[in-house]
Amino acid sequence: MKPIEECTVGIAGMGIMGGAFAMALGKLAPARLLTCDPDAGAAGAALAGGVIHEAFTDPAEMLGRCDLVYLCVNPSALPGFMGGRMGDFKSGALITDIAGVKGNIAKILEAGLRDDLDYIPGHPMAGSEKGGYAQARRCDFRGKNYILTPLKRNRAENLSYLESLIRRMGFGRITVTTPEDHDRKIAFTSQLCHVIAASLVDCEADTGITRFGGGSFEDLTRIAMLNAPMWAELFLGNRDELLARIDQFAESLGAIRGLIAGGGAAALEARLRAVRERRAAMAG
Amino acid sequence: MKPIEECTVGIAGMGIMGGAFAMALGKLAPARLLTCDPDAGAAGAALAGGVIHEAFTDPAEMLGRCDLVYLCVNPSALPGFMGGRMGDFKSGALITDIAGVKGNIAKILEAGLRDDLDYIPGHPMAGSEKGGYAQARRCDFRGKNYILTPLKRNRAENLSYLESLIRRMGFGRITVTTPEDHDRKIAFTSQLCHVIAASLVDCEADTGITRFGGGSFEDLTRIAMLNAPMWAELFLGNRDELLARIDQFAESLGAIRGLIAGGGAAALEARLRAVRERRAAMAG
Repeated sequence: MKPIEECTVGIAGMGIMGGAFAMALGKLAPARLLTCDPDAGAAGAALAGGVIHEAFTDPAEMLGRCDLVYLCVNPSALPGFMGGRMGDFKSGALITDIAGVKGNIAKILEAGLRDDLDYIPGHPMAGSEKGGYAQARRCDFRGKNYILTPLKRNRAENLSYLESLIRRMGFGRITVTTPEDHDRKIAFTSQLCHVIAASLVDCEADTGITRFGGGSFEDLTRIAMLNAPMWAELFLGNRDELLARIDQFAESLGAIRGLIAGGGAAALEARLRAVRERRAAMAG
Repeated sequence: MKPIEECTVGIAGMGIMGGAFAMALGKLAPARLLTCDPDAGAAGAALAGGVIHEAFTDPAEMLGRCDLVYLCVNPSALPGFMGGRMGDFKSGALITDIAGVKGNIAKILEAGLRDDLDYIPGHPMAGSEKGGYAQARRCDFRGKNYILTPLKRNRAENLSYLESLIRRMGFGRITVTTPEDHDRKIAFTSQLCHVIAASLVDCEADTGITRFGGGSFEDLTRIAMLNAPMWAELFLGNRDELLARIDQFAESLGAIRGLIAGGGAAALEARLRAVRERRAAMAG
């Protein structure tokens, strides 16, 4: 790959994440920064704001020019987007995506990817419960985690190149792992947490309950302001792992409930102390 | 009650909350601000820092001088503290506390309170997962909720007086309710949330999991850094209400699990959308 300053970079999809990547990549001064989005309004706002150089509604016009492509379309649209556009990419292009579930995507890509393209699946652990291009500036990459799930066929120098860009955009830890490991762990750190937050709001009909809030309820339910179609998609796209994680959590909940019902302070205290120690050992 | 500028104010217990109340009440310029704590170190630090005027290890020396007493001792120590010291209080004193469970305390007080004293039970919804006087400066009262559960015998002018002080210390909404209503709602907004956070950490042994964190897990488990003896006490002190809330939550969790297992996007989306709307309707 050429230095980023000589690359034409394309971002497919100008939602919150596409917008945030446009801003972060723009600071690395690529030769040209392009976007395509069926919503001309979002792409137009990015153009008017000086965030990108050119905007397209037809992806084909953009993809043929790009050395590096960031796919920031909705996860469910990704397979269709790729499947129908293999002929559109520039030869030698490096492609990456930001989808929150990786197993299914990896399989689709292994099957249909053109030989002269390199596609490295990725998952930046940044975002917001609020979507849309207008929220892009609020999406802070600094110090955030980034997961990469490379394909066997990925070229080592392209992986290093992408890692370097990710660091330069401000991300913190980069973890390279398998799609399966990603999906298992993300089911815990992200999807299960959203299911819990949703369940917590779901079980209380009294909207005046927040008069009794001291921060805990607010912390636990911030992410309950979720984008329903996207999260339904993420939950169902990683269903088996997520169900296993819900059951794992329900088991611990039941055990702690049992200790409370039992009424003995010593065993309950010991379990809570172990929780505190484990959480302290979990860096970050 | 005299204006606060003419009052001698006593704070029993110089932990994070006692310290934070000393700092907040100190700004209202009481004539004298005293504290008592069996730990001479904490009280000494408050004295050395100019936060209070005098420190005692024996509560009796302090209580006899105070027009207003803030009881910031551990909830479990409160009945013992009050029961053994009825003779120590100054006649006409206004007393309040900060314990997170109110039903049991209200009953104990109704039984043994001296006729010339007025005790208004309260619960400031502020604090931190970190305890101790050294953390007091990090305990921010601004805009926080405050719950009062007055006794039938409380004098209306004392209730107004305390409410006025609470507002002047920076708190936001003050809610006046019964101990039973307090305990039922606090079981949800506070104790259930801590049980959930603890269960979430409890069910995952891999401390490296936070490499896959994107903020949700961090938000949900901040309060898992809990003070084990205090929270075991709060859980057991409000056991029946808390168990009912855990079951209520588990039912919603099971229902959402069922929708995910079922695999249909429409019903899952509809439920998540309803969650989002309800959370939005919950002010604060």
